Amino acid sequence: MTESFAKIAARYSVILFDAYGVLKNSFGVMPGVLDTLVRLKNEGKHMYVVTNDASRSPQVMARAYVHPTHGELISAERHVTSGLLTSEFLRTKVRTGRVAYLGKPSSAYYIEQAGLIPVPIAQCEAHADVSALALLDDEGFDWQLDMNRALNLLRHRNIPVVVANADPTYPVDTHNVAIAVGSLGDLMERIVHKRFIRFGKPDTLMYAYAYAQAQTNTAIPKLDKSQVLMVGDTLDTDILGGNKFGIDTVLVLSGNTRRETAELEINSTGIIPNYVCESVLG
Amino acid sequence: MTESFAKIAARYSVILFDAYGVLKNSFGVMPGVLDTLVRLKNEGKHMYVVTNDASRSPQVMARAYVHPTHGELISAERHVTSGLLTSEFLRTKVRTGRVAYLGKPSSAYYIEQAGLIPVPIAQCEAHADVSALALLDDEGFDWQLDMNRALNLLRHRNIPVVVANADPTYPVDTHNVAIAVGSLGDLMERIVHKRFIRFGKPDTLMYAYAYAQAQTNTAIPKLDKSQVLMVGDTLDTDILGGNKFGIDTVLVLSGNTRRETAELEINSTGIIPNYVCESVLG
Amino acid sequence: MTESFAKIAARYSVILFDAYGVLKNSFGVMPGVLDTLVRLKNEGKHMYVVTNDASRSPQVMARAYVHPTHGELISAERHVTSGLLTSEFLRTKVRTGRVAYLGKPSSAYYIEQAGLIPVPIAQCEAHADVSALALLDDEGFDWQLDMNRALNLLRHRNIPVVVANADPTYPVDTHNVAIAVGSLGDLMERIVHKRFIRFGKPDTLMYAYAYAQAQTNTAIPKLDKSQVLMVGDTLDTDILGGNKFGIDTVLVLSGNTRRETAELEINSTGIIPNYVCESVLG
Amino acid sequence: MTESFAKIAARYSVILFDAYGVLKNSFGVMPGVLDTLVRLKNEGKHMYVVTNDASRSPQVMARAYVHPTHGELISAERHVTSGLLTSEFLRTKVRTGRVAYLGKPSSAYYIEQAGLIPVPIAQCEAHADVSALALLDDEGFDWQLDMNRALNLLRHRNIPVVVANADPTYPVDTHNVAIAVGSLGDLMERIVHKRFIRFGKPDTLMYAYAYAQAQTNTAIPKLDKSQVLMVGDTLDTDILGGNKFGIDTVLVLSGNTRRETAELEINSTGIIPNYVCESVLG
Repeated sequence: MTESFAKIAARYSVILFDAYGVLKNSFGVMPGVLDTLVRLKNEGKHMYVVTNDASRSPQVMARAYVHPTHGELISAERHVTSGLLTSEFLRTKVRTGRVAYLGKPSSAYYIEQAGLIPVPIAQCEAHADVSALALLDDEGFDWQLDMNRALNLLRHRNIPVVVANADPTYPVDTHNVAIAVGSLGDLMERIVHKRFIRFGKPDTLMYAYAYAQAQTNTAIPKLDKSQVLMVGDTLDTDILGGNKFGIDTVLVLSGNTRRETAELEINSTGIIPNYVCESVLG
Repeated sequence: MTESFAKIAARYSVILFDAYGVLKNSFGVMPGVLDTLVRLKNEGKHMYVVTNDASRSPQVMARAYVHPTHGELISAERHVTSGLLTSEFLRTKVRTGRVAYLGKPSSAYYIEQAGLIPVPIAQCEAHADVSALALLDDEGFDWQLDMNRALNLLRHRNIPVVVANADPTYPVDTHNVAIAVGSLGDLMERIVHKRFIRFGKPDTLMYAYAYAQAQTNTAIPKLDKSQVLMVGDTLDTDILGGNKFGIDTVLVLSGNTRRETAELEINSTGIIPNYVCESVLG
Repeated sequence: MTESFAKIAARYSVILFDAYGVLKNSFGVMPGVLDTLVRLKNEGKHMYVVTNDASRSPQVMARAYVHPTHGELISAERHVTSGLLTSEFLRTKVRTGRVAYLGKPSSAYYIEQAGLIPVPIAQCEAHADVSALALLDDEGFDWQLDMNRALNLLRHRNIPVVVANADPTYPVDTHNVAIAVGSLGDLMERIVHKRFIRFGKPDTLMYAYAYAQAQTNTAIPKLDKSQVLMVGDTLDTDILGGNKFGIDTVLVLSGNTRRETAELEINSTGIIPNYVCESVLG
Repeated sequence: MTESFAKIAARYSVILFDAYGVLKNSFGVMPGVLDTLVRLKNEGKHMYVVTNDASRSPQVMARAYVHPTHGELISAERHVTSGLLTSEFLRTKVRTGRVAYLGKPSSAYYIEQAGLIPVPIAQCEAHADVSALALLDDEGFDWQLDMNRALNLLRHRNIPVVVANADPTYPVDTHNVAIAVGSLGDLMERIVHKRFIRFGKPDTLMYAYAYAQAQTNTAIPKLDKSQVLMVGDTLDTDILGGNKFGIDTVLVLSGNTRRETAELEINSTGIIPNYVCESVLG
């Protein structure tokens, strides 16, 4: 029932990859993936990573895709992260001041990039003079203390709230998942009755950003959406968003979606990928 | 616009009080409340506490209402807690075995009362042999570690989940609130796509329990609902539930609902108390 | 895997039946059901119907259970309908005036019983002088015209809204369902940001009402919940509510829940009946 | 507190207008609007309509903006409608076959444009051989009959569902609103447990579409987002989406948002426009 990824990929000019469950897992880049990327690059494919992740900078992420002999395979510039869109929003709409955040120190990169000053929520009083609140990552803070702090900050001050990763959970190993910052955002949003601004797939803004970047690439003349392929392991983010953006989609079974239930899930959700592949290998 | 609580109370035989925001705040029983309870008792009123709380046993709660000279004013038997209903459910429907829980050690009382063995979630493996999961209180555990543990337990084992306190938040002082275990239950329920069983107002089961107990009281012959009054500080738990159960309701302004916004909130939610009073004093 | 209903029923004094999918279907009372009810009655069982239905009066409903030779098997008094609870609410909390409604003329019975005046929404202007809005049934009105009328009425007047049947859908034949008034209530509630008051299973108020009535029956001395059995065809109304109320529950496979998927549904929802039977026959 | 729209507009090259509540109301184009558009055009502004509407074709919509002496002011090509995105999706992802729809015959334009065959849901049996279901408009069908038909079609066939207008309601006059097809989609989606694909603001795809089109315009060299202004009357569609897309936003008070409550709504939702103007006039 599954098809060969190599044959499918051959028909497209631009390939967008989700990272977790497609190229990487919790142990790092999956075996064989670097060689696959080398082959695709040699075939002239333009590759991007489109990932719901604001825990680290694109520079740090790109280091995972350095081949011992062929060098960097997907550069930092070709990493479209939900953190990057968050950063864009802070830069264009919030503009100045301090931004309270929940997340690891490394995720504060996305606030600094916007020219703003990151302040861990643990250092914010309830009436702190901050211009926005950013939910960046599920690690790096005390959930109980700091979510209560963030909640009371929002009850006292009318500031925009951005959630840099809309995913509710992420896989930690074959058998277990962890609650992601998207779920913490949902919890707080329901309590304060405010609209939080979420970045990340399935929202099409991520795809539009990657597509716009590919269009500026003079090596790909006359690019249109029919030449772009999205590769992901999750139906309701990667595939739903790609379908909605109007590009072709491949579901791979190397991550969130299990072989045994893939067909059932496709049928029951109504989210239909163009192709299903075991993985990006083969 | 507000009325005298004493005059209203005079017209009823049975008075149900919410605890927090009505009789107590985070500093303990509010000044003047014990004297009010003494007066109501002397007038022959039958008083109950109906509270969304599973953090401590009714015995411990009742100690708050002991008057230096008049003794115990509302006995443990007259405390109808959401923990008690949870305990009833565990006793009648789960029956035997170990129950994993989130909460303080003191909240485990409600599992023990049901004849079951409480096990803190921190001591449960993902495939632990437990018969149910109980969300009892927001204190007493590491939110990040233990909610992830609970989540993975539910992904591996099909067991009922009970939430002993449906409130999303509770007030900690005049200006701040804290996230309650009800919100943690919402977060997990959305992720695992299972129906959690919630106990607590506005569900009418709490009122039915108190009413049934009052009916067995031979000192109140021919009790019907028109003789019962619910006193609460929160529209969407105390008042909504009382209205639905078919008893009269008083909103007091000594807790969650502020004087300035009470009328607006009543209008915008459509939850209409029979009376509004400043507090149970006067 | 299923058990004999007759053997299970023998162990209880009071039996609560859901109507649709258990005793009736869209063609009327199911073959064999009347004889089963005769037998249970002869064995001394006290039987009640507990149904999410406000389309007709209990008197009309009771006519379905008249045996040609044994007469009336479940009287109108033993029909606990969601309409009855709605009527109770209107009588005790709304008290006087006109009540706008969506539903068939026969469902207006529940407004009249409360001593109030029913007014079809089609006859209400946007500022009509009504004391409440009641959503009683999905038939008897023009959905587009009258839901828009009801919506604008609620935007102009702050009145309580009651939904007399919380079910989202109901089965019309083996293959098809119809949208019930509960779903229409959900649609409007989300738009007006008000709390509607819902009556019907899984809310335990229905069970409490039937139980209280059984307790007044002098023929059943010392009744407690362990002697009461709920029989239903739907996990998330009949069984969830019965479990929560603390009585034993039987899932029958003659209605909403199909034999092929019953076990999967029980596992995936976490709503666990005490017994599973093919039907109330045999 | 409000500012002059003319002064604000002067600082941008590209202006995106919502239609209803900004340029039009239920009586047609608002007085003075055509003259304003003439002036903006003469000043060299590039104007687009970005509207959640799939009831008519862009060609029909464009006819509203024809000035008696200056001719067409905003051409059909510059109307970015939610119907257009729906059409794109059908063309690229569904591709062939018949598409069942709810809506007026004129809304079927968007199915035909995609090269597919529109079939009113009233003509579909429960197992009809259709490739997708499209919810296009709230008019043109019998809500009760046809929503039940659509619901049962979805229970029997696994096809994608597109909702061409995500708005829950729309204003019909100063005092009243009507339920839009977005709310009907919500109702059905909750019942069938499937992900419907929604098009329309606040989703940024509409903005990306308009922006991409403006970028191809050789008359606007080096366009970037800082030169684009979104003008809308609704915070949680027009303004939220514009903010998220990273362009400046103007809230006008000539439609959904009333002068008296604008500030309160901005504060309570946390959706903050760059500017607030009485209208596009003056």
